[in-house]
Amino acid sequence: MSLPIIKVHWLDHSRAFRLLWLLDHLNLEYEIVPYKRDANFRAPPELKKIHPLGRSPLLEVQDRETGKKKILAESGFIFQYVLQHFDHSHVLMSEDADIADQINYYLFYVEGSLQPPLMIEFILSKVKDSGMPFPISYLARKVADKISQAYSSGEVKNQFDFVEGEISKNNGYLVDGKLSGADILMSFPLQMAFERKFAAPEDYPAISKWLKTITSEESYAASKEKARALGSNF
Amino acid sequence: MSLPIIKVHWLDHSRAFRLLWLLDHLNLEYEIVPYKRDANFRAPPELKKIHPLGRSPLLEVQDRETGKKKILAESGFIFQYVLQHFDHSHVLMSEDADIADQINYYLFYVEGSLQPPLMIEFILSKVKDSGMPFPISYLARKVADKISQAYSSGEVKNQFDFVEGEISKNNGYLVDGKLSGADILMSFPLQMAFERKFAAPEDYPAISKWLKTITSEESYAASKEKARALGSNF
Repeated sequence: MSLPIIKVHWLDHSRAFRLLWLLDHLNLEYEIVPYKRDANFRAPPELKKIHPLGRSPLLEVQDRETGKKKILAESGFIFQYVLQHFDHSHVLMSEDADIADQINYYLFYVEGSLQPPLMIEFILSKVKDSGMPFPISYLARKVADKISQAYSSGEVKNQFDFVEGEISKNNGYLVDGKLSGADILMSFPLQMAFERKFAAPEDYPAISKWLKTITSEESYAASKEKARALGSNF
Repeated sequence: MSLPIIKVHWLDHSRAFRLLWLLDHLNLEYEIVPYKRDANFRAPPELKKIHPLGRSPLLEVQDRETGKKKILAESGFIFQYVLQHFDHSHVLMSEDADIADQINYYLFYVEGSLQPPLMIEFILSKVKDSGMPFPISYLARKVADKISQAYSSGEVKNQFDFVEGEISKNNGYLVDGKLSGADILMSFPLQMAFERKFAAPEDYPAISKWLKTITSEESYAASKEKARALGSNF
């Protein structure tokens, strides 16, 4: 059965980069349909014509024989679909059911457990840097710190400790000692967390080494070039 | 092949209820291993012995012949695993690939898109009700409102509008006009949002009716009784 026509609906400065990396690593042919954020850094209305939530990435898959089109949203689901339908030689997935389960677990884990506390820390960092006048800025910082203590900073540590343990147990990768779809999907939030200082690389040597290893893949460099050409800065 | 021994590691006041409902609706035999939150409303350390993140629900599956045990975490992944391995007559899943994809999409969507803005609104509501003295309480409320406007209230509306549209298009259910695993998993965040007034039922008639319909299932009542017996209040 021939591979379908694959299109990535791409919004700059979004987590869509990971999907390019996945498809490039699997040497799949695809087209990028680029969208630009508006002045308020929001996704443009055109994306809502593709999927009612108007978010990126969206994966469009069109059957070459029937012409039937399918639009897929949610990065975890898109990754699962691509690995299931297009990774026939199990380059980034596994034929072993237990290993496949571990990879699929991370496709849910990244948004279900890792992303939420990082998102709160990100929002609170924006509150602290929002340039409000004194004394409001001082109080806003106090409120933000209280929220962080109660809801997110401890949880970020929990999640990083967990991932550090899993990578250490699996010879430098998340699952089974080799690169899988889980590593590609998990790369972004962990990179961002280090960059935004929500966690310190020196506290997590296994994660730091893992990020260096996986981002030295040729496919990472190739998709980074494509993303840059579309206006994303790295 | 005989069904394995199934255990639900259950923490009171958690989203674990949905898993009981799923298993009950599929008439699966399972055991509940209950855990109580500590004085700070945190999960007890015993849960960390089952899975390093120490969260609930956890599903324990043990092969009756080999005795081999598997611990599954992340509600979306647990639902997908149960539907794939134990719902052989497709009571809450579908043999049709497109319909199965739609159900699987929601298993990712609920944590990837719906839960995050609701979580922010929940945290901000706690900040507003935190009983800080005036004028700090006044300023904290101002900060919380700004965060809500910038990051969550609009997004809650986006998600509710989307779900309202999907239920309206699918004869009162999320997918294919009948009850599926997607409805059970999606029930909790939407119920909570109405209860906490992050969205008004009268603005979303299709979601309101859908909640009444699915919670009138016998399996809902049965698992609610079990949860109550374990100390959960509804």
